[in-house]
Amino acid sequence: MSKSFSDVPCSVARTVDLIGDRWTLLVLRDIALGVSRFDALQRNLGISRKVLTERLHALVEQEVVSRAAYQENPPRFDYRLTEKGNDLAMVLVAIQTFGDKWAFGEEGPPMLWRHLGCGEISVPVACCSECGEQVRPGDAVPVRGPSFDDEQLPETAAAIDRLQALLS
Amino acid sequence: MSKSFSDVPCSVARTVDLIGDRWTLLVLRDIALGVSRFDALQRNLGISRKVLTERLHALVEQEVVSRAAYQENPPRFDYRLTEKGNDLAMVLVAIQTFGDKWAFGEEGPPMLWRHLGCGEISVPVACCSECGEQVRPGDAVPVRGPSFDDEQLPETAAAIDRLQALLS
Repeated sequence: MSKSFSDVPCSVARTVDLIGDRWTLLVLRDIALGVSRFDALQRNLGISRKVLTERLHALVEQEVVSRAAYQENPPRFDYRLTEKGNDLAMVLVAIQTFGDKWAFGEEGPPMLWRHLGCGEISVPVACCSECGEQVRPGDAVPVRGPSFDDEQLPETAAAIDRLQALLS
Repeated sequence: MSKSFSDVPCSVARTVDLIGDRWTLLVLRDIALGVSRFDALQRNLGISRKVLTERLHALVEQEVVSRAAYQENPPRFDYRLTEKGNDLAMVLVAIQTFGDKWAFGEEGPPMLWRHLGCGEISVPVACCSECGEQVRPGDAVPVRGPSFDDEQLPETAAAIDRLQALLS
């Protein structure tokens, strides 16, 4: 069993606890696209029933995925993203954006997205919630939040202080 | 050794090959914040020198992180994100946004960001590159890209066709 990050006061660490498994992200990718049934997931991913069952169980327990019976005898279920799962899907969007740019070269990406709002083929860009401008690494500086713990992450604390000092 | 996804025609799978390790994302988190030296990384993460050396080596080899000597005898290096690493850092931004919302409850998140452009405490939101509107799961539909392979991902192909059919 890997070390759990659930006590670390860091949003990245706690989320890695949820997705830090190679298969989990791919299971989520398929469910996000509407591949909702066990057999279809298994066929698409090419994994064992045991591994898929474990990953789905963990995702349901974490309330990232819900399951609803579509057949009673034998019992069969549809798996869908919950509200929490839709938020986690935004991580997949960021992963895909990175992979589209860096993992396919001149060949071009395997999947594009058409934004229903404007009808154009579109890529997601991260924007500031306050002013709407596009944001990139270096465009924002970290600030201690309510649950920051200097003792548990001393080098992070020092890095925040260094970045703050650059501003003043 | 885990199965490699480098031949799968999917940007998520290929990126999981790069980041699908619990420690790698945390090493990247620290380097993105400017924790650039081996000893500081080791102290912040609380991992063995062996594991950290392996992860850094892989990140340098993948050109996500560059290293530059800051001392010659004994040799010591600063680790920084490359351009590719800055793009990958946008995945960390998405992970942090999710964790801030779902992993800390009423306690509030450990770290906030001040956007230098507008000076406000800000969260990143995903927006359409074409019209600038915020995008959420369900706001866009997938379209086959130049390197899509129906045979390797049959259920994904079927899901794309189902989503297309809903539109016409």
